[in-house]
Formats: sequence, C-alpha cells, structure tokens
Amino acid sequence: SCPPRCVCASTILSCSQAALSMVPSPLPRFAALLDLSHNNVTRLRADWAPACLPHLHTLLLSHNGLSFVSTEAFTHVPHLRHLDLSSNRLRTLEENLFSDLAELEVLLLYNNEISTVDRTAFENLSCLRKLYLGQNRISRFPLELLRDGTRLPQLALLDLSANRLRSLPVGELQALPAWLRDRLYLHGNPLLCDCPLFQLVARGRYRHLSSVLDFQEELRCVLPTTQTAVGILALANQQSLNCSEVKEAVLEGHLGDTVTLACDTRLQGVRSWHWVTPGGEKVVEEGGNGSAALLANGGLRLQDLRPEDAGTYSCWVGGPVLNETLYVELLVHNFTLHGPHDTLNTAYTTLVGCILSVVLVLIYLYLTPCRCCCCRGAEKPPPPRDDSINYSVLSTTPNH
Amino acid sequence: SCPPRCVCASTILSCSQAALSMVPSPLPRFAALLDLSHNNVTRLRADWAPACLPHLHTLLLSHNGLSFVSTEAFTHVPHLRHLDLSSNRLRTLEENLFSDLAELEVLLLYNNEISTVDRTAFENLSCLRKLYLGQNRISRFPLELLRDGTRLPQLALLDLSANRLRSLPVGELQALPAWLRDRLYLHGNPLLCDCPLFQLVARGRYRHLSSVLDFQEELRCVLPTTQTAVGILALANQQSLNCSEVKEAVLEGHLGDTVTLACDTRLQGVRSWHWVTPGGEKVVEEGGNGSAALLANGGLRLQDLRPEDAGTYSCWVGGPVLNETLYVELLVHNFTLHGPHDTLNTAYTTLVGCILSVVLVLIYLYLTPCRCCCCRGAEKPPPPRDDSINYSVLSTTPNH
Repeated sequence: SCPPRCVCASTILSCSQAALSMVPSPLPRFAALLDLSHNNVTRLRADWAPACLPHLHTLLLSHNGLSFVSTEAFTHVPHLRHLDLSSNRLRTLEENLFSDLAELEVLLLYNNEISTVDRTAFENLSCLRKLYLGQNRISRFPLELLRDGTRLPQLALLDLSANRLRSLPVGELQALPAWLRDRLYLHGNPLLCDCPLFQLVARGRYRHLSSVLDFQEELRCVLPTTQTAVGILALANQQSLNCSEVKEAVLEGHLGDTVTLACDTRLQGVRSWHWVTPGGEKVVEEGGNGSAALLANGGLRLQDLRPEDAGTYSCWVGGPVLNETLYVELLVHNFTLHGPHDTLNTAYTTLVGCILSVVLVLIYLYLTPCRCCCCRGAEKPPPPRDDSINYSVLSTTPNH
Repeated sequence: SCPPRCVCASTILSCSQAALSMVPSPLPRFAALLDLSHNNVTRLRADWAPACLPHLHTLLLSHNGLSFVSTEAFTHVPHLRHLDLSSNRLRTLEENLFSDLAELEVLLLYNNEISTVDRTAFENLSCLRKLYLGQNRISRFPLELLRDGTRLPQLALLDLSANRLRSLPVGELQALPAWLRDRLYLHGNPLLCDCPLFQLVARGRYRHLSSVLDFQEELRCVLPTTQTAVGILALANQQSLNCSEVKEAVLEGHLGDTVTLACDTRLQGVRSWHWVTPGGEKVVEEGGNGSAALLANGGLRLQDLRPEDAGTYSCWVGGPVLNETLYVELLVHNFTLHGPHDTLNTAYTTLVGCILSVVLVLIYLYLTPCRCCCCRGAEKPPPPRDDSINYSVLSTTPNH
C-alpha cells in the first residue's frame, strides 16, 4: 500500500524529493504524516485527496513551486494540525482558504510571494497557535483579527517579518496582551518613523518582549524627511521627531481614588501569581486583605488611596515554563481630585433626605386641613361618617 | 543574524537543501526550529551548537547521509521536543545517545541502517510519545522498555515495522495496555510462525487495533517447515501448526466467586466510562450499586457470582477523540469452587469465638480463686486491703 518513490514507516509517508509533479494516489487511509516537500507539485487541486484522510495531522508541501491552492483543497483532511506551505510561489490567500481546518495549530506560509491576504482566509481557525507569514510581500494585513480574541483565540505567535508593511495600528497593538505582543514579529518592514511607533517598540524593550529584544537591529523605520532607514529605538535621539522617553508601568492616582494595577505578563495560561506592596506585604488570595484586593484577571485593586500607598508594586507570575516578575510604580498626588463630589454624594444627600422627612412630618402634624375634626372625634367614640372623612384626606377630595 | 544560504522567518531557520556540509555557525540564540534537511551534514559532532540554544524545540536533519551522532550532540539543546534523523545512514544507537533530551516528544529514526540499539539509548526520555524506527535492520529491540511503564511512561507509538525481528516476547506484548498495542507496529518483519504469535495478532484484530487492521497484509511470518512466508492471520487454517481459534474477552467464574472484568481500551487518558450489565443495568459511579462495583481503573468487580450474572457486559469509554464500546462475556459455572473454605472462614470462626467467650465467662464466674472474698466484701463496706486483693487478680500474682 506504499505509493511508489515514497518511504513508508507505519503511519508516516515520506515522499520528499521524489520528483513528483502530482500528489501520489491512492493514499493509504491510515496516513498520519505526509511529506511531499522538495517536489514539483505546483497546483494543489480540490481532488488531490479524493477520499477522506481521517488520521492525517501533518502535511508538508514546502519547496514545491506551489502557485495554486484550491479553496476546497482541505475538505478531506479535517483533522490537520500542522500545514507547511513555506518556500513556494503563493501570491494570494483567497477567501476562506483555510476555513475547513478547524483543528489547525501551526500554519507555515513564510518565503512565498504573498501580497494579498483576504480577511476571511483565517476564518474558523479556532485552534491556530502559530502563523508564519514572514518573507512575503504583504503591505496590508488584517490585524483586526487579533483585536478581541474571538477570531483567533489561541494565536500566540504571528510572524509578519520581512514584508512590505508601511504603517501599523499602534494603539491597537499596544492594547494587545503582552503574551501575544511577545511573539508578534514585525521587524524587516519598511515602516514609517513616528513617535507612536517608537513608543510601541520602546515599551516592548522595557517589557523584555522577545519580538523586540531578539530583533532590535532589524526593527528599522524610514525617516519621513530624509527617506533613510534608522533603528526604531534610535528615534529617541532623533532631533526631527523629538519623541519623549518611555516610562511604562507608572500609574498616577489621587487621595481617596480607587486604582487597578494590571499584571501584563508575557506568559499565557498563567494560573498562579501574587503581588507584593511597597511595604512588603504579600497579597496572595483573591479578595485580599484590607484596601489591596487581588482580582481574578491578575490585577491588584487599591481602594481609598493614601499617600503611603505610593511606591513600587511587584507582580510575581508563575508560568508553565518560566516565572516572571513585573514592577508597577504608583504615584499618589497629595490632593483629592474627585473628593468634594464624593463627600456630597454620601453626607449631603443623607442630610437633605433627613430634613425633608422632618418637614413632611411637621406638615402632616400641623398643616393637614382636617386635623381638628379628627382630634375632636378621638375624644368621644367616632360616628361612622368620620371614616369617610379620613379617607378623603388620602384622596385629597374636599368634603367638608 | 541569519546564516548565509538560509531563510529566516522570525524564530524559524530553514536551511533545507542548501548544500551545507556542516551546521552553520553561529546560530542565533532565539532559534526555535532549525531545518537542515537535504544537506550533506554527515557527522553531528558535540560542538555543532557551541552555545546553548534554549528555545530550540525542533531539529530536522533528515536526508543528510548522516552516519555519526556524538553522544554529546544534544547537551546544548535541552528543550528539544521534535528530532528528525530519518533517511540517513545511522548504524547504531549508542549508550545514552538521547539521554540529554528530557523533553523530547517525537523521535524520527526511520529509513536508516540501524542494526544495534543500546538499551540505555532511550534512557531519561520521560516525555517521549512517538518513536519511529521502521525501515531499519534491527534484529533485537529492548521491548522491556515498555514493560512497566516507568522507562518510557508517555510512549503511545512505537514503529518497528520493516526490520529484521525474528521473534517477539508474545506474552509480554499481550500484557501491554491496548492503547499501546494499538500503535505498536511490527509488520514487515521476518517473524517465525507459531501459535502464540497468531493468538497475539488475532486478538489485535478482534480488538480492532490499528497496528493490525491497517497492516493485515504486511503482518506475515515464515513457516518453520517450508520456510515460506504466509499471512499471520491465515495460520488458523494452517494444518501443520493447528492453532486454536481466538475468543478474547471471555471470562469464567464459579458460584460465589468475585471476578473483575477489565475495560482494555485503545484510548489513552480516558476520563469517563460506564458498564452495562446483561440485565441492562447501567453501572456509572465508582463503588456502584449492589454486587457490581465500578473500579477506579475502569474495571467492573462482580461479587458473590450467581447463575443469572452470566452474559455479555459492555464497557462504554468516552475518549478525547472518539468513543469506544468493549464487550466482555462472562460464563458462570453452576458450582462453587472455593465454597467450603469461604463458609468455614465466616461461620466457623464466629462459632469458635462465641464458645470461647462463654467458656471464659464461666471460668471467671466459678473458677476465679478469690471470688468468694470479693462477694463477702461486697455485702458490707469493704476494708481497705480488699483493693489490693482485686489488683492481684489483674496482675495474676498469687497472694493468698
């Protein structure tokens, strides 16, 4: 059952460098890994796998001069977890190209000629963890796919290095969690220099993100004035732009405020963490003690700020591979910003409510129109018609 | 920082088919995947990675004509999870060759010239899940590595197909759990035909193990008489051997016995299962109801067997990918085998204990030497010395 020119080792079919111009057929149903790298399979048509290959989890098609992949090419391999299409000649990623691959975890598309990426190409890839698109010709990538974590919820690595990106949605990227920014590779692109870009990269360096630290020299941008490329981190010294220094993780508050310190870690799937306050107090349990409360998302909430709350807070994070400690500096300004309003809300409204009640009671006691009749009625057994007079007070219908 | 003749895409270094005769140096410290396949790296020396590559998780070295791998080759890549040494010219696996790779999960060694495997080569591979050794020249493999699940505790696939194995420890293999037998590939070997081998394979077919079902035609053996190769499953019809038919999962018991029905599933890491008795009763919870008790290992224990307990029990297993139902037939012989001994243990010992108690009470009442003194003492307030007499009874010191 082993196709000619291939090596079969139980569930592995290795047909690498076998001078194949087409995918061999038929393929054994039990195949789990199919290696077709270094061949001449230039077109991957819908019928390359005529029957379902229910156990295929790895398909290697790199170095094939592949220029066409049918949008129905993956209907028969629903359990694919690893797809290597790198080092080929792909030019576009069509609508819903990979949407059949609901279990795909790693997608290698580097070293192609991709210039157009349809925003639906990665629809339904709810298990995708790593997406390599480096060494292509992409000038626009739908980074909104990362925005809310619903489109690619598992994505932990996105390689867009060595492409043709000129601008980035810096604000959106800065809002991404650190564990995703840690593996969001953007070096080797002809980005335009500006201060927000500098801030983004400088914050990454401050946070020891590997996407910045490992590729500092390749993180370059083009100066708008002279059209020359400079290191992005050198922009701080660039007179023409005058970008201010970055001091991340400094939070400011005022007396009586409630602030939340975020623990923006590079580690995903963290299950244990604690905070240490400037006074050395360790906040371990959710809920916490006193004014410092640990939140479920790893943050620390400080209520009713006092001057002595200022200082450097450290967040210790225990991850599956390594541990990390983050530092957040808190400045407490020695005046209340929203103070007067807060006082009004508690004391003043209570006082007003109290006075109003007293006034209403006094009105009821002394200004009710029929009070004298009632008094007189109370001195002797009341006649039956007195009841109707009492009701009239409630309905405010004059009947005397 | 990208080595010449390689393609770099963030943490991937692809130097496939680059006419390299040595591993390029220096390698960037952040490399996670290094592809050196289809080159001429014939020797992997200890110094191929002079410094530690702490992030390297995949090393691809297939199709290199590799004939030598130093036993210290992997000291600097401690976090390797995937190692591909397939389609090379390796002849032996030396002592502790892979022992530095404590996190290795997949090891590809198929299509080499391996004839000698040292039993310590796979020492310390506590994370290894898949080991491919097909298409080699192995005539003896240390299958005892699988025996107790402590050497390779995670191993779920072992490919020994197309080697030179002539005999197998059938009894040991049959004792392995079904989830490991399901992926233990032994086809394509010049095995010697005998009935235990037939029983092993026939049981595998009965249990729908993929290692048997997918490779039925390649599961062949050599007849000792004629030296011709025949299908192992065809041995049932072979007059010269006269192997008996296989009926797995038939259990026999006697009246009053306690038996345990095993649920030998092909699925690993199962977390939910239940049994259905011949009467249609569903045993879901551990402990269970009445005489049928679900055990923590998935088995079903039946106590105090009655004739009506006989019949076909089914075990339903819910796995991470698929569900499975197993059937076990129970025969109950209509006589007790160990009956008399059991009766003696319960009734006889109780009777003996009872009689003994009565005798002791009678001895105490009538034969205690000082009983009369005590009685007399009780009729009037006892003098102080009577206490010492009472104590003497307890300490059995004669004092009269």
